Amino acid sequence: MAHDTNHSGKHTHRADEDKTKLLNRLKRIEGQVRGIQKMVEDDRYCVDILIQLSAINAAMKKVGMNLLENHTRHCVKGAIEAGNGDSSIEELMKVFEQFSKS
Amino acid sequence: MAHDTNHSGKHTHRADEDKTKLLNRLKRIEGQVRGIQKMVEDDRYCVDILIQLSAINAAMKKVGMNLLENHTRHCVKGAIEAGNGDSSIEELMKVFEQFSKS
Amino acid sequence: MAHDTNHSGKHTHRADEDKTKLLNRLKRIEGQVRGIQKMVEDDRYCVDILIQLSAINAAMKKVGMNLLENHTRHCVKGAIEAGNGDSSIEELMKVFEQFSKS
Amino acid sequence: MAHDTNHSGKHTHRADEDKTKLLNRLKRIEGQVRGIQKMVEDDRYCVDILIQLSAINAAMKKVGMNLLENHTRHCVKGAIEAGNGDSSIEELMKVFEQFSKS
Repeated sequence: MAHDTNHSGKHTHRADEDKTKLLNRLKRIEGQVRGIQKMVEDDRYCVDILIQLSAINAAMKKVGMNLLENHTRHCVKGAIEAGNGDSSIEELMKVFEQFSKS
Repeated sequence: MAHDTNHSGKHTHRADEDKTKLLNRLKRIEGQVRGIQKMVEDDRYCVDILIQLSAINAAMKKVGMNLLENHTRHCVKGAIEAGNGDSSIEELMKVFEQFSKS
Repeated sequence: MAHDTNHSGKHTHRADEDKTKLLNRLKRIEGQVRGIQKMVEDDRYCVDILIQLSAINAAMKKVGMNLLENHTRHCVKGAIEAGNGDSSIEELMKVFEQFSKS
Repeated sequence: MAHDTNHSGKHTHRADEDKTKLLNRLKRIEGQVRGIQKMVEDDRYCVDILIQLSAINAAMKKVGMNLLENHTRHCVKGAIEAGNGDSSIEELMKVFEQFSKS
């Protein structure tokens, strides 16, 4: 599966509250994607589908910004404090770039 | 539900082949969103999750571009040929702007 | 120069008013780019420069949306009415995609 | 002028080499913006102009990513090392969000 192909094997501990929030958002997005499938099956008007797609993209970006912020606040900050921030910052910049293009 | 709130009530007939293709893509995206939920549950590394999010965003953009192209090739073109293209073009521009921002 | 390398040699007639508006916007953007050069020369804070860059990007996107709309309203519509819209639509989609990525 | 309205009054010292590189890129972008003005004056084909606009946007994004990287490598890292990284990270996230939307 796509999410198993290029991972680092690393893990992160997230606060339970953050995790629940994140999972709820992702479940809502999953529901929205299913909603779009139904719209396609029902031959709904393309512009209506496109508006829904934009809404999902915006929700995905929010999830991404959230993860990015948590990552910077914990992993990157921790690495810098431990004196080995450079590779962490390099990785952050790569993910910034990829994310801002997508 | 989000996909029922601001729709026009209009419908579009899509070729069966296009519809199947589109639905398959959306099912794959749904699976990828579920994959990200699992990554969060498993406390996977944020950067790995962010890379997966970018992949989904890219897949969503592809679906969007596809719909936009079909819409222009059929609905907008048809409206112009029927002599009432102006509102169709205005709508296309709005949806493109919203889409390119998302 | 970059703007001479990959052009089609085609021309478009724009209404004088539209042309003046467009040129004024582009002159303002040129001034903003010079403003950023001065900020760099004066060692101004990176975040302030980044905020200015975002403002220019937003202004550029507006110019682009404007051109895209004019192009669709005139060239693409005209081509469809003349019965040869297909290559025009294909070109529009390519430029949409490139523009939404940039 | 736009670049004087909402600044923080802070300054950053950039390495001379980085500064020269950045200024050269910005001068090239300024030239490209002037190039687009000429294209408009010459009634050049909209799609050709749009392709040029996309090229400038891409160049602007590169400048922005560069500044963002320098900022993170120096200012943000320094603030974290000095024990007051939190507001620096918050600012970084805001500017990244604004930048990725533009």
